[in-house]
Amino acid sequence: MQQIVDFILELEKLKGVTRKVRPLGLDRYENSAEHSWQIALMAASLAHYAAQPVEIGRVIGMLLVHDIGEIDAGDVMVFVEGGWEERQAAELAAVTRIFGMLPEPQGAAFLALWREFEFGETPEARFAHAVDRAMPVLLNLSNKGQSWVENGVSYERVVRRIAPEIAAGCPALWAYLEFRLEEARQKGWFGA
Amino acid sequence: MQQIVDFILELEKLKGVTRKVRPLGLDRYENSAEHSWQIALMAASLAHYAAQPVEIGRVIGMLLVHDIGEIDAGDVMVFVEGGWEERQAAELAAVTRIFGMLPEPQGAAFLALWREFEFGETPEARFAHAVDRAMPVLLNLSNKGQSWVENGVSYERVVRRIAPEIAAGCPALWAYLEFRLEEARQKGWFGA
Repeated sequence: MQQIVDFILELEKLKGVTRKVRPLGLDRYENSAEHSWQIALMAASLAHYAAQPVEIGRVIGMLLVHDIGEIDAGDVMVFVEGGWEERQAAELAAVTRIFGMLPEPQGAAFLALWREFEFGETPEARFAHAVDRAMPVLLNLSNKGQSWVENGVSYERVVRRIAPEIAAGCPALWAYLEFRLEEARQKGWFGA
Repeated sequence: MQQIVDFILELEKLKGVTRKVRPLGLDRYENSAEHSWQIALMAASLAHYAAQPVEIGRVIGMLLVHDIGEIDAGDVMVFVEGGWEERQAAELAAVTRIFGMLPEPQGAAFLALWREFEFGETPEARFAHAVDRAMPVLLNLSNKGQSWVENGVSYERVVRRIAPEIAAGCPALWAYLEFRLEEARQKGWFGA
């Protein structure tokens, strides 16, 4: 029991890992713990629109654990270019350490979910990626492009980076966002 | 799609509903969104210790939605006495409104999970309650009783309020906490 308690308290640290978007109406940055909660419910709400039928429990599991590596590695905006391999190695080391705090088979089960998400090859992982990519877009579309403007991210860079993953995992969501992103472009809600 | 997006953005508000405990090492109060994320993973980690076998997917679903009524009703500490029926009615009205934003059957599915948790009658709901009750205790045990001290909550009141639910849903967790709470009492980590 003490091992499990230590693991749960280790998770506390994700509440202090901040992202680049602000929650609507709040004067602070979002943290990766509350983000993980929201996208788990987003996935459940959108499951019907997944590109292929998915086991939603596994999608939710992946989304709940996918950012835990940030406890050691921190959050990096999806638009940062380069350093991807080093970053993946750092996150793998982190989750190996953190899930390793748990007795088996639970530690291995969480690590398997994390790897499935990272590899992105199953229908569940592709759908989970689509949801994870789309959430900050929805916030920016409600926030006058706050994190795009603050970080100088252009319309083209957003579309190039997120379109393939969202379209592959949840085509109807991409169709919706494509239209909304064009509206946002006309309003000037992007960085240079 | 727009209905689902509106629902997901409505969930934003739970990130601004604050609780009485502080995340470890952070100088702010916990919000109900990050709390919901953490107890979903806590339930997955402890599933083996549930009083009866549980379908863990339903437990996680309940924990992800159980606090959404606080978007309209706010968070009230579990130790506040009285007003329980009014509070439950307010939360039911809130989740009826919020889950009603979704197309069916998803809105009804979330409402069913919320009701199952509230009624607390299935093995899954009892286990979910045990986890929800225990999490702030674990934080207080790592935080010198921060929210107990700040809110004048005595050892006796904590034990009276949480012991039955935790023991019913997860006896091994109660056995662990009972010992730790006694240690905390000896250290003076409670209010008067």
